[in-house]
Amino acid sequence: MEQLTVIKIGGNVIDDDTVLHSFLESFATLKGKKILVHGGGKLATRLAEQMGVKQQLVDGRRITDAETLKIVTMVYGGYVNKNIVARLQSLQCTALGLTGADMDLVPAIKRPLKNDIDYGFVGDLVPGADTQRWRWLLDSAVTPVMAPLTHDGLGQLLNTNADTIAQEIATLLSPFYKVQLIYLFEKRGVLLDAEQEDSVIPVINPVRYAQLKEENIVSAGMLPKLDNAFAALNNGVAQVIIGQSQQLSHIIAGTAGTRITHD
Amino acid sequence: MEQLTVIKIGGNVIDDDTVLHSFLESFATLKGKKILVHGGGKLATRLAEQMGVKQQLVDGRRITDAETLKIVTMVYGGYVNKNIVARLQSLQCTALGLTGADMDLVPAIKRPLKNDIDYGFVGDLVPGADTQRWRWLLDSAVTPVMAPLTHDGLGQLLNTNADTIAQEIATLLSPFYKVQLIYLFEKRGVLLDAEQEDSVIPVINPVRYAQLKEENIVSAGMLPKLDNAFAALNNGVAQVIIGQSQQLSHIIAGTAGTRITHD
Repeated sequence: MEQLTVIKIGGNVIDDDTVLHSFLESFATLKGKKILVHGGGKLATRLAEQMGVKQQLVDGRRITDAETLKIVTMVYGGYVNKNIVARLQSLQCTALGLTGADMDLVPAIKRPLKNDIDYGFVGDLVPGADTQRWRWLLDSAVTPVMAPLTHDGLGQLLNTNADTIAQEIATLLSPFYKVQLIYLFEKRGVLLDAEQEDSVIPVINPVRYAQLKEENIVSAGMLPKLDNAFAALNNGVAQVIIGQSQQLSHIIAGTAGTRITHD
Repeated sequence: MEQLTVIKIGGNVIDDDTVLHSFLESFATLKGKKILVHGGGKLATRLAEQMGVKQQLVDGRRITDAETLKIVTMVYGGYVNKNIVARLQSLQCTALGLTGADMDLVPAIKRPLKNDIDYGFVGDLVPGADTQRWRWLLDSAVTPVMAPLTHDGLGQLLNTNADTIAQEIATLLSPFYKVQLIYLFEKRGVLLDAEQEDSVIPVINPVRYAQLKEENIVSAGMLPKLDNAFAALNNGVAQVIIGQSQQLSHIIAGTAGTRITHD
């Protein structure tokens, strides 16, 4: 099976032009089929402040009201996405900027009330994505660049977690490609000691994960990433790696990052 | 040759949700291959005001400085484009939102100084667009939705006139399809008397155009549209029509709008 690399970059990569450009240079040289999924970063928050739109938080989670959806559509779907695409073109990578609404690539539904909390225009992914269209793009040497936006099929765009989108696409395409899913963030991997950048845990399997959780080593922010990683493995993804964007070539070579494995 | 319809909608369609939705309903039912090119509308100006970004005008023409480029990338490339795409999906039209940077579909260069005026990040189209990629999209029943943005191939996005993009695409694809290019705006066509909505001139050929210009009947805003239309015809486009978005089905049927012809 041909290899497919799905890479997710977060706000820390997007917010720093130097880091972003150097990441895109490594990404462009990556051999084989690849998909980039990006998050949003601080730009949306900054624009909201500039526009005088107040961010609603409930239990620390951002609520996507109509104005916030407009902002993330502009910032993630427009500014961030299209600048990445233009940059990749200059690096001879045939990029195509997308949201889940484009060609109905990532169908979703508006999140139902949870514990009486209305998250607003937030998308929860639903089955039914058309693998044929994804393969049509990839097999034509196009590199999809996904913004964290989906739609409900009824005309409504929805703000959607980029980690979840990356995992869903990786899973969806695993019957057709040998998929490696790479989450890039500010740390060099999952750290044994959050203060020590060189304490990267090279491999985490289910047994090790249970230990780490028991010993309270895994930080709260890392838990959903690891849960997503194991879910992806259980659904056919060949390999999941968590690491730092600056180390992409080492991660690909297998000498950096934390590898999440079955056994 | 198979027919291809390239439709350009302007600000007046985009700024009015009711008009836009009813246009998209007609557009979605259009048979055959089609491309939609949209302008920006007042949203960008409104956002600039909200953000406190001053619009620079030189000789009545807007200068695209870095902040303005950011705004149009967000509004045209993000908000307007992706909402149109989501709406078209709900109407069973497989839309794909694009800028000229995506897959390098519309290459451009930053406009050189003209009469010592620096227009900023404005794109002038250059030859070299890859017709194969356009045909690959169209022949796969994808409906491209183009925002008025291009790129210079060096990583820089550029603000670009939507009329010009529509004309360029129509011309580019005329060796492969029988292309009709339709410009939709607020009037029912080119009017003999600007005050009389029912004074639509049904047909304008080069001789009639010369007359109209001589008699000062054509308004200044209409001149570039007509010049573009004749340029498109000279470059192989089969038919150019100017009319009102609400009348799309009549325009297609040949009973509304102004038809620009060679003879």
